[in-house]
Amino acid sequence: MNAAFDPASVRALVFDVFGTVVDWRGSIVREGRLLSAARGLAVDWPAFADAWRAGYVPAMDSTRGGGWVDLDRLHRRILDTLVPRFGLQALTEDELAHLNRVWHRLSPWPNAVGGLNRLRGRFTIATLSNGPVALLVAMAKNAGLPWDAVLSAELAGAYKPDPAVYRTAARLLGTAPAQTMMVAAHPDDLRAAAACGLRTAYVHRPLEFGAQRPFVPAPAADFERVASDFLDLARQLGA
Amino acid sequence: MNAAFDPASVRALVFDVFGTVVDWRGSIVREGRLLSAARGLAVDWPAFADAWRAGYVPAMDSTRGGGWVDLDRLHRRILDTLVPRFGLQALTEDELAHLNRVWHRLSPWPNAVGGLNRLRGRFTIATLSNGPVALLVAMAKNAGLPWDAVLSAELAGAYKPDPAVYRTAARLLGTAPAQTMMVAAHPDDLRAAAACGLRTAYVHRPLEFGAQRPFVPAPAADFERVASDFLDLARQLGA
Repeated sequence: MNAAFDPASVRALVFDVFGTVVDWRGSIVREGRLLSAARGLAVDWPAFADAWRAGYVPAMDSTRGGGWVDLDRLHRRILDTLVPRFGLQALTEDELAHLNRVWHRLSPWPNAVGGLNRLRGRFTIATLSNGPVALLVAMAKNAGLPWDAVLSAELAGAYKPDPAVYRTAARLLGTAPAQTMMVAAHPDDLRAAAACGLRTAYVHRPLEFGAQRPFVPAPAADFERVASDFLDLARQLGA
Repeated sequence: MNAAFDPASVRALVFDVFGTVVDWRGSIVREGRLLSAARGLAVDWPAFADAWRAGYVPAMDSTRGGGWVDLDRLHRRILDTLVPRFGLQALTEDELAHLNRVWHRLSPWPNAVGGLNRLRGRFTIATLSNGPVALLVAMAKNAGLPWDAVLSAELAGAYKPDPAVYRTAARLLGTAPAQTMMVAAHPDDLRAAAACGLRTAYVHRPLEFGAQRPFVPAPAADFERVASDFLDLARQLGA
């Protein structure tokens, strides 16, 4: 927390999405359990969700510098390796294709939509995710996320934490870096944004990796604001 | 009108904005008249609006190939030339700065917001304007335009009718050109989109240049759909 920080200096908020706005793990587990109920499959869905997500960062890293990746295809490539490992061989191609698009249907954390609607009355609010524009648009339509603009690392032709991503976002929104606040549940993302001159708000998402995983909050002194959720952030920013 | 065209093949609609979604001329005239009433100025506001807009295309042309322009600055440069010509010397710097931002406050045509809300239930809807992202976001917040994504020629680093603009929009939305429909009141914009494989819908905006200017509709055979407004377009597309 930075007591000297004045929220009136901020004009736009840019949000990390996976884990910060939406609960990817809980969403995948829920869809998986519905699939289990419908098809009589015994699957460890929390472990499946973790394995799917764990495959994402190395797969994306392997594409760095090689142009932009089709995230649906990347998720599918990982999913195909999980099919034998988690006993999903009974699923049809249609079912696998539908499951792969669960990333378009991720659910927001409780009160995230309400919090965004409050913040939106005072600030311009935009995504700033490594996910592609098309996926972020589909997710927003499905979940009712009221973005003023859907921005993505894709528009910078780079991935966070590359500085080009944060700078491109501020440039497109017509705001100076110091008028732009990055909101994320991930300290590394926020530190990279701060290095580009953006303001930062850290939001606790203790369940992102499941209730079993001990949650260690980041040091509050590193960020302009630390909030328990988006409604709390709205209160703290006077929205 | 193309009777063989199937609206179910379309997934995303991209909209020209100035003249197609918003009534730039009527909005400027109204704000001008409010300024006249407040300050006792006698100004020919319709002629002023036309002169302001007429300065835009050559000014923008002069920047082609020279990178992206700050539209607020460009509008201000033109406005400064209009001050002596239209007798606006009594305006303060604050009043001029406010007037210059009228482009952020343009009003939608009647039922445009209602039409967009209907279309949005069935299609992804996005802007595709030569205006910059920041201006389009400000306009959308002010007018309640429910865009799923704010796309701009800025994201292609080019201006319409450059093919890169239309292709970039379809790529970002994750739709094939034939699944993407350009909606505009301007035949040239639509023809350039069609040359890139996009579908086209022509919307009549007979008052764009004022009621005095004779309105000559474009030949209907050139486009997949011709509509009188966005609600009519929604009906025609089954939304």
